[in-house]
Amino acid sequence: MSDLTGQIQTMGRQARAASRALAQLTTSKKNTILRAMADSLDASADRLIAANAQDLDRADAAGLSDAAKDRLRLSHSRITEMAEGIRQVASLPDPVGEILRQWSRPNGLDLTKIRTPIGVIGIIYESRPNVTSDAAVLCLKTGNAVILRGGSEALQSNLAIAEALQCGGTRAGLPDHAVQVIPSTDRDAVRIMAQMNEWMDLIIPRGGHALIEAVVTHARMPVIKHYDGVCHVFVDASADFDMALAIAINAKCQRPGVCNAMETLILHQSIAADFLRFAGPTFAEQAIEIRADAEAYELLNEQAYPHVRAADETAWRTEYLALIMSLRIVPNVAAAIAHIETYGSHHSDAIITEDPEMAERFLREVDSATVYWNASTRFTDGGEFGFGAEIGISTDKLHARGPMGLEELTTYKYLIRGCGQVR
Amino acid sequence: MSDLTGQIQTMGRQARAASRALAQLTTSKKNTILRAMADSLDASADRLIAANAQDLDRADAAGLSDAAKDRLRLSHSRITEMAEGIRQVASLPDPVGEILRQWSRPNGLDLTKIRTPIGVIGIIYESRPNVTSDAAVLCLKTGNAVILRGGSEALQSNLAIAEALQCGGTRAGLPDHAVQVIPSTDRDAVRIMAQMNEWMDLIIPRGGHALIEAVVTHARMPVIKHYDGVCHVFVDASADFDMALAIAINAKCQRPGVCNAMETLILHQSIAADFLRFAGPTFAEQAIEIRADAEAYELLNEQAYPHVRAADETAWRTEYLALIMSLRIVPNVAAAIAHIETYGSHHSDAIITEDPEMAERFLREVDSATVYWNASTRFTDGGEFGFGAEIGISTDKLHARGPMGLEELTTYKYLIRGCGQVR
Repeated sequence: MSDLTGQIQTMGRQARAASRALAQLTTSKKNTILRAMADSLDASADRLIAANAQDLDRADAAGLSDAAKDRLRLSHSRITEMAEGIRQVASLPDPVGEILRQWSRPNGLDLTKIRTPIGVIGIIYESRPNVTSDAAVLCLKTGNAVILRGGSEALQSNLAIAEALQCGGTRAGLPDHAVQVIPSTDRDAVRIMAQMNEWMDLIIPRGGHALIEAVVTHARMPVIKHYDGVCHVFVDASADFDMALAIAINAKCQRPGVCNAMETLILHQSIAADFLRFAGPTFAEQAIEIRADAEAYELLNEQAYPHVRAADETAWRTEYLALIMSLRIVPNVAAAIAHIETYGSHHSDAIITEDPEMAERFLREVDSATVYWNASTRFTDGGEFGFGAEIGISTDKLHARGPMGLEELTTYKYLIRGCGQVR
Repeated sequence: MSDLTGQIQTMGRQARAASRALAQLTTSKKNTILRAMADSLDASADRLIAANAQDLDRADAAGLSDAAKDRLRLSHSRITEMAEGIRQVASLPDPVGEILRQWSRPNGLDLTKIRTPIGVIGIIYESRPNVTSDAAVLCLKTGNAVILRGGSEALQSNLAIAEALQCGGTRAGLPDHAVQVIPSTDRDAVRIMAQMNEWMDLIIPRGGHALIEAVVTHARMPVIKHYDGVCHVFVDASADFDMALAIAINAKCQRPGVCNAMETLILHQSIAADFLRFAGPTFAEQAIEIRADAEAYELLNEQAYPHVRAADETAWRTEYLALIMSLRIVPNVAAAIAHIETYGSHHSDAIITEDPEMAERFLREVDSATVYWNASTRFTDGGEFGFGAEIGISTDKLHARGPMGLEELTTYKYLIRGCGQVR
């Protein structure tokens, strides 16, 4: 067993012990701890900025882009934001202890299904250092211990944030080892985490496709994946053109780099020519590049659309995350649904129609985490759903599907009270 | 790509297509199909028995034990039982389409969380051929396509059962390829199934530890594991001795070979000597072999208990599945809980006490799928819970924990109805 394996397994064992203690904390105790953690972040701002400076120096030396360095940078205002985020989580209702169902059996047994923490959660991420705080506090609020593995470029920042959280929390009663960051940039750490199913109950990779693939390949415990969003908007024959255009522009352009942005626009054949004449100038104004099927290509050429290319088969599966969209014309709603089921990623898909029958068919038959009628796909988001907080958007079907809030970080157990029953 | 890989992946692709059609069937259509499948099993009895005879011949040649051959054997009465089981599942309520939550947002979006099928489920099992029918119909009732991989010794029986189900179902409107059995005894089939996450959404291994380990090692999709039950009964200081003895005997002896049977009896020190004097003769009468800790060993020797050995560390982790039990004496409820958390399998654990405070502490602190106060661990069972049917007992914490009924074979999606909302 390598040193790193031993070190990470020790962290796992310690996290397991912490999770037992965490599971027994009352809601008000957990909220007191969370507020103490927020105060500790505020009070540690200078230390965090100093640790962050080490990461930024290394980033300079490694020639990271200015955009990457900006994502990495901790400022006083960003630290204040993190602390505020923690106080908001403290103010949310605690799902743990919620009674999900209660019933009696003819033999007199009294059964209660009650929400409980999961135990130990591993989170692997590549993004900004604030994820260290955001992810940790959602786990703690739900009574889970957490082991974090962030991007190697942010290691000193992540360690400093975790230390500030654990240190402030400890003074308020947080069990030791409730929040831990893997103190190594060794890529093998991901494999070791993913295989220690004795000490970890769930692993959540938040990052690019390659990272998620690596976790899925090695994992011996449940993984909740946050894969791509290849999201569609289908403009049906009876769509209101103004609404359809507003939704398409919002879904494509408001924030193109996120997973709930639209990648493919599908048009009903009967309105395709009219709609493209109506919408084309706005698409052009927004500088949207279009990858069009043969029929749409011809229509766009007729109006001399400035940025159009013929789509090939790969276009239908592509998450552009940019001001590019695929465009397809279909003969009916069934063909639109078939396209979405074949090429989509089952994330978020919308129909724009004034025909309730078509809408209900689309809602029923499209097997995606979130299916919309006359609204933008951009609403697939824990905050927009009213969950108060979000750990991510699951593209899995099991345990959690779509936006994951606090409830999705819990499991349940059955309590059975009897008076001597035997079988 | 090997022939077997190609063959199994084709089955996966066909199952995916079937699952899309299955998801759109109404409850009454599904029930009509299930009843047609039951009738088809009845009508195919002679063919099933002929296929089973081939398996039995091979079992003879391979020198299988009489007990194994008995488990393998299909008789007219066993086929009637399978068919009756299907009719029972047809009569259960359909969880698909159930509205789990419905709410509106300040922007006027109307959100509905609705229960849906999972998609394609793989079930790998080692047991009797009736599992082919039992597992398939639970998946179909919940709108899922199923790919089955049974024990190699039952291959002809399993193929014949699946054919009878699919054939009878097809006449009533079952989509093609909704029920498929892997037509190969190649061990590699398990690995191939476990890796085709494009075509399979969930895999459920039902069998011994080695089988589950193999699936967990290879799986790229969620696995719901059905591991061992190392279940405990803790007799507290204030326990009613008659009740404690009746529960211990029931939990240990009524069916020792199942996962919810007790493996370890824990006694509070203050009543240990009295309780063993009271219970010893009954334990001896039942011929229970005891692996005792030092203190219990001495007490049992004093009363010349006939079948006692000193327990070593491995005893506490052992699932005997036989008339053997580990016996431990602890100073208090905290030590009992610590023992269960350290050595148990988080399946089913009971406290016998007249003290509600101790009971509630035990219920709160023991992190097992099912925690009992004054009842036998043997009640951890879908039927006993009132679920009507059971695919197994999950020892996982994610998606499904404890007895898995029809609801646990479903997921959900969000339907969002708007009037043009954008972000």
